[in-house]
Amino acid sequence: MISHLLSAADLDRDFATLVLDTADGMAAAISNREVRKLPTLRGRTVVNLFYEDSTRTRVSFEAAAKRLSADVVTFSAKGSSVNKGESLKDTALTLQAMGADGVVIRHGASGAAQRLTGWLEGSVINAGDGTHEHPTQALLDAYTIRSRFGRLEGLKVAIVGDILHSRVARSNVALLSTFGARITLVAPPTLLPVGVSAWPVDVSYDFDTALADCDVVMMLRVQAERMNDSFFPSVREYSRRYGLDAVRLARLHDDAIVMHPGPMIRGMEIAAEVADSARSVIVDQVTNGVLVRMAVLYLLLSGERGTTA
Amino acid sequence: MISHLLSAADLDRDFATLVLDTADGMAAAISNREVRKLPTLRGRTVVNLFYEDSTRTRVSFEAAAKRLSADVVTFSAKGSSVNKGESLKDTALTLQAMGADGVVIRHGASGAAQRLTGWLEGSVINAGDGTHEHPTQALLDAYTIRSRFGRLEGLKVAIVGDILHSRVARSNVALLSTFGARITLVAPPTLLPVGVSAWPVDVSYDFDTALADCDVVMMLRVQAERMNDSFFPSVREYSRRYGLDAVRLARLHDDAIVMHPGPMIRGMEIAAEVADSARSVIVDQVTNGVLVRMAVLYLLLSGERGTTA
Amino acid sequence: MISHLLSAADLDRDFATLVLDTADGMAAAISNREVRKLPTLRGRTVVNLFYEDSTRTRVSFEAAAKRLSADVVTFSAKGSSVNKGESLKDTALTLQAMGADGVVIRHGASGAAQRLTGWLEGSVINAGDGTHEHPTQALLDAYTIRSRFGRLEGLKVAIVGDILHSRVARSNVALLSTFGARITLVAPPTLLPVGVSAWPVDVSYDFDTALADCDVVMMLRVQAERMNDSFFPSVREYSRRYGLDAVRLARLHDDAIVMHPGPMIRGMEIAAEVADSARSVIVDQVTNGVLVRMAVLYLLLSGERGTTA
Repeated sequence: MISHLLSAADLDRDFATLVLDTADGMAAAISNREVRKLPTLRGRTVVNLFYEDSTRTRVSFEAAAKRLSADVVTFSAKGSSVNKGESLKDTALTLQAMGADGVVIRHGASGAAQRLTGWLEGSVINAGDGTHEHPTQALLDAYTIRSRFGRLEGLKVAIVGDILHSRVARSNVALLSTFGARITLVAPPTLLPVGVSAWPVDVSYDFDTALADCDVVMMLRVQAERMNDSFFPSVREYSRRYGLDAVRLARLHDDAIVMHPGPMIRGMEIAAEVADSARSVIVDQVTNGVLVRMAVLYLLLSGERGTTA
Repeated sequence: MISHLLSAADLDRDFATLVLDTADGMAAAISNREVRKLPTLRGRTVVNLFYEDSTRTRVSFEAAAKRLSADVVTFSAKGSSVNKGESLKDTALTLQAMGADGVVIRHGASGAAQRLTGWLEGSVINAGDGTHEHPTQALLDAYTIRSRFGRLEGLKVAIVGDILHSRVARSNVALLSTFGARITLVAPPTLLPVGVSAWPVDVSYDFDTALADCDVVMMLRVQAERMNDSFFPSVREYSRRYGLDAVRLARLHDDAIVMHPGPMIRGMEIAAEVADSARSVIVDQVTNGVLVRMAVLYLLLSGERGTTA
Repeated sequence: MISHLLSAADLDRDFATLVLDTADGMAAAISNREVRKLPTLRGRTVVNLFYEDSTRTRVSFEAAAKRLSADVVTFSAKGSSVNKGESLKDTALTLQAMGADGVVIRHGASGAAQRLTGWLEGSVINAGDGTHEHPTQALLDAYTIRSRFGRLEGLKVAIVGDILHSRVARSNVALLSTFGARITLVAPPTLLPVGVSAWPVDVSYDFDTALADCDVVMMLRVQAERMNDSFFPSVREYSRRYGLDAVRLARLHDDAIVMHPGPMIRGMEIAAEVADSARSVIVDQVTNGVLVRMAVLYLLLSGERGTTA
């Protein structure tokens, strides 16, 4: 019985599969009902504890929790007691004491979600901690790929961009390799972490070569402030070498798909026409994000393991 | 069947009347129930997408949606992915993918609400776009006038102040003229738009003269930052010539009413004693705002046209 | 019949006891239900009107209101019409007109909650006004003490720290003396208010002496910006003389408890090991805060006086 979701690296294949199957069940349960809500978590309180701004992730968790009829309280660190010097521990004890059944935390420090579990009886869900992990992103990505290909085992996935700073990349590498996918990281050497040789991945510096036989191209967000310094000479040069434009898109095989965790900057890491192409599943990722988060909340907070299907 | 509410200029008299009648129905339905909520929109999600701060309008829509039992999610542009360079289009696709049934948008750019409709299957409600329109404000104003006089046709309405920058004025001119009211705009020449001669209105630079025979005086909010520059010599001079004080109030005929969309600055465009006088319907406007927004949400999102009465 | 909760000084012993008994009833009612919500305030709207940031207090009221099934709307003064020059009066009239059944207000000006009652038909709950009062804090503190000792009458309570600026201290002095507790204020002379000799308390400048026979030590939050100026020489000196560390803790008698309204700064006014000790009821205070606020909302908004037990 799992009570927290801290990292994709922690998940075994059985539990990860259960999450994806439960998300399928959520999709079916919602679409069959006139009122698109399930009463499953009525009376439970989910706290969104966001130390970093992320409207997109916060809203996705909020929508997921509300569709399960939970009460949602947002505890944004901006303007909170955090600014008055309160420690993460005391914030945790406060949420616990207020009766939080689950805490969804986004924090700038790697390991913050893990630390929270020492102070809470309720479930902790990591919604991104530093450069460490963002496990629900990996789960929704895996769900999206499985929905398209019917499987994950043996698929070839290229993850492209700023691997060094990306918790999305870390979580996807962990989960996709657990599912038996074959991963190639595509990035300039300056944007790869030091220990990458120990990861279960291939590495390529050449996007065009890596593109040739992959089933999934997963683009990462570029943070412009990291360009024009020691990491990369310029945004323009980055786009030329590691951006996905229509020319590169045309080299993919017929069934290959394009993913992006969002928010994306059209024209930088991905061309507008690529983002809008039939191969793009970027919008499906968002839809699936709500389903996968419903599944996670259900499995962690309802006190039972099992699908709703 | 209308699926969006973008501008008062788009509304024909039948549909606008339907909105006002539905708001009457909402008032009756709520007041007859012990629990002042209707189950109409259970399971529907309304997103408040606010690129400009407006607690007042946001809270009014939020209260309206909650009284219809919808789930409400606020997506404020402050601190959101918008700041990370995401386009309006991608934000729209994200909300769509998350299952938004309706999006209430306030945006600094005229036409933003219209553009949103190209990317959303759900309903778009314009809660103010640039200097263009603010249609629910016009509907609640029309509802408030009709509640007082029993009709709109033939009433004489003076709209007073900074017409140039006012989406409230534009929406009211469109809707009130559709309903057959006779409108006079009262403003200094610098605060009138260039094409005003083509509008279905009279124009006056002299508030005292215009006051004489009007039934409704609708004051507009003054933005102090627009005084003391090319638009007007000073706040004090503005107040003297275009402010509504007790002396001017006394010149109105006995049944005339005073309106203001709020937030107002007492002592600037309107004297405190005028705002609080028996002729002021400013507080009714706020109450009616919730009813009219309930009506709009109901008509657009419940999938049926019809009153609840 | 009380319709507002403005200050602890207004409460007579009967009503204050009713609040605590109702909180007991809430605890029982919630724990006996599978779904931890009560339908009591369905269809009622509670507005959180926060002119000062206080995530902790806001979330506590929000959780309390939601457990009673009320709709909660947050009206934060940041980025609201308040910034556009709207008066407190007009904000109040707006909330009233939108149908607020209760308004929970936190404001930097002493007396703000009181003034609000002149403009609202709904109930006003003071969640902290300037240096004046914070009555629900005093109620939750009294509830916490009564839960531990079974009574309040005759208990010896030391309130320690910056009494001068503390609304928590003012509310606790009023309520605890109403209940017959014996209060000692412990503070340097510069952090005591001028009129303290008229309060129903003893005053001590020496924490060690005051500690000897008290049942409850209530530490106040230190605001670092008030140290190093005319109020006190340094933070370090303050901690040494008025901080609660393990040495002082050991001098308390066996049943004595330690309280803190939060947020606390470990190592300043209270040592980490004291905050986490078995005598600390700081976490209980948070839990009881939700129960007491449920009781207050219930008693003021449900239209009946009585317990739910």
